[in-house]
Amino acid sequence: MNQSIAVVGGGSIGIAWSIVFARAKRPVMLYEPDDARRELAEDDVMRRLRALAAHHLLDEGPEDVAARVELVGELSVAARGVSYVQECAPEDLDVKRSLFRELEALAAPDAVLASSSSAIPPSSIAQAVRDPSRILVAHPGNPPYLLPVVELVPSPFTDTRTLERAHTLLASVGMCPVRVHKEVEGFVFNRLQGAVLREAYCLVRDGVVDPRDVDTVMREGLGRRWAFLGPFETVELNTEGGVDAHATRMGPAYARMGAERGQHDPWTEAMVAQVSSAVQSRFPRDRWRDHVLWRDSALMALEAFRRRTSLLSGPAAAEQANNYPTNSAQGDDTREGGEQ
Amino acid sequence: MNQSIAVVGGGSIGIAWSIVFARAKRPVMLYEPDDARRELAEDDVMRRLRALAAHHLLDEGPEDVAARVELVGELSVAARGVSYVQECAPEDLDVKRSLFRELEALAAPDAVLASSSSAIPPSSIAQAVRDPSRILVAHPGNPPYLLPVVELVPSPFTDTRTLERAHTLLASVGMCPVRVHKEVEGFVFNRLQGAVLREAYCLVRDGVVDPRDVDTVMREGLGRRWAFLGPFETVELNTEGGVDAHATRMGPAYARMGAERGQHDPWTEAMVAQVSSAVQSRFPRDRWRDHVLWRDSALMALEAFRRRTSLLSGPAAAEQANNYPTNSAQGDDTREGGEQ
Repeated sequence: MNQSIAVVGGGSIGIAWSIVFARAKRPVMLYEPDDARRELAEDDVMRRLRALAAHHLLDEGPEDVAARVELVGELSVAARGVSYVQECAPEDLDVKRSLFRELEALAAPDAVLASSSSAIPPSSIAQAVRDPSRILVAHPGNPPYLLPVVELVPSPFTDTRTLERAHTLLASVGMCPVRVHKEVEGFVFNRLQGAVLREAYCLVRDGVVDPRDVDTVMREGLGRRWAFLGPFETVELNTEGGVDAHATRMGPAYARMGAERGQHDPWTEAMVAQVSSAVQSRFPRDRWRDHVLWRDSALMALEAFRRRTSLLSGPAAAEQANNYPTNSAQGDDTREGGEQ
Repeated sequence: MNQSIAVVGGGSIGIAWSIVFARAKRPVMLYEPDDARRELAEDDVMRRLRALAAHHLLDEGPEDVAARVELVGELSVAARGVSYVQECAPEDLDVKRSLFRELEALAAPDAVLASSSSAIPPSSIAQAVRDPSRILVAHPGNPPYLLPVVELVPSPFTDTRTLERAHTLLASVGMCPVRVHKEVEGFVFNRLQGAVLREAYCLVRDGVVDPRDVDTVMREGLGRRWAFLGPFETVELNTEGGVDAHATRMGPAYARMGAERGQHDPWTEAMVAQVSSAVQSRFPRDRWRDHVLWRDSALMALEAFRRRTSLLSGPAAAEQANNYPTNSAQGDDTREGGEQ
């Protein structure tokens, strides 16, 4: 067993994962069975690495990172001797099952086998293999080299050591792994995203707000805090008395808004206490005022950054400033730097 | 009628609104009846302006901006001759009603009277006055000088011209006004925030995920896109085929996740078409690939910025880098700049 990683599938997510591992100095075997796609993938890895370099996000030259990614057309070659496999095949259960059956036979017995799936529960894959103990889902954001979160979802048959090894490996390459303890549809990332989308669609349907203004409320409001504070952290710092005071003061209103959507999930004292104690492990309540000042400083820094770049203001503004590559100029990486 | 603005209430929101107007060169009369609070408010305006200056967010000296804010202890003095009143009193209906009754008598007949309330519907206030046509809610994020969104909520009695004048004025001072067409509890900002919080609490209750990891999923994932893209814009660029393809592919899964919470609000073709057409007014579909490249460039710029400052990584990291003022050192504004 060596330090190598196998990435299975040369589509957009497979390419992005290869970059995550290769920029962390891990050799990557990127498996893509289709000859034409394999060539495209090679170009795409290079194009993305050049963009990262233009934004000063690589410690070394893009060629040095790309040199660690080996495109291979044989699964047996890709999986040989690796310690970790990140599967990125199309979201089709039969495809995944047959891949994992092959991987089980080809990979070293203690290799971790992770699927990038956002929708297929790990136990559906596990049912198809002989030894499901080393299989889990490791679901990333898109693209994973820019959104560090990755959801680790075990099936009931996943060994604890598999989870621990995946966690350690992914943290070591700069990702932020979170543990999803149960196989729920959408995991956590898409549960939160779905909650916003469902509410947003209802507000548009009911004529409360125009769709563009829903986007404005997020982009020019909520999203600026959520870029560096989670939802519980946000309310902890928004209300004197933190999560507990927030639940007392706002809980009944949020319960009524939920009830309008058919939801009846009261925030019990025990739930609030659990959340409060967790948030305070990062933001001790006795320094609440300091942390509010920190939040405002972070918002100011973010606002100052927005004013220095046109990039966050939208594609039209960025294009006017010649700040991002258009499709027709993909090869022209001198135009990719947003931050000259 | 002059260019002056009256801000009613010298608490945290009133002070923040005063800064919004004063930095846009509008003279502000800030009314606070309590003598001690009035003095504190004067200091707080200055402290916040110094922090903004340290982040290079003012076009002029903090003293120049502060000079436009006049603290007054008489409502009649504050409201005299102003074109716009932003009320920021405590969230108590009786207090608001009596204030608006006074304001109606004191302010010029065509002055717009706006409440900052996040929870009190404008018609509850309107019922208490003689002429409700010039009353509306203008609900900001916190603090409004850093989160530009402001929700304009009319009551059924609000005159269209009142809405238009509030919209024009607030846009002219750098805010992003959105129109909320109906008085729904939570308006839009807190509806979206509440949807996330309700789902987050359920996931914690059901043992799906630890509270800290909910925050991580937002902070290290979803929130990084929502900092510059709304939820509809995000899915438009996440899925080839945009909002329409997203609704086809992901709609059923999101409907099932909603049903688990008691919600049954299908995304009809008409709803999806309305959202799709609105989003495409900013992101024409025929340039989808260009816009995805823009999104990734923006994410890269944001990530590069994160690496240059410790501020977004949390209070501990920021403090270690001596990057934000602690409570005990509030007066020491040389420490406030996060971005030297």
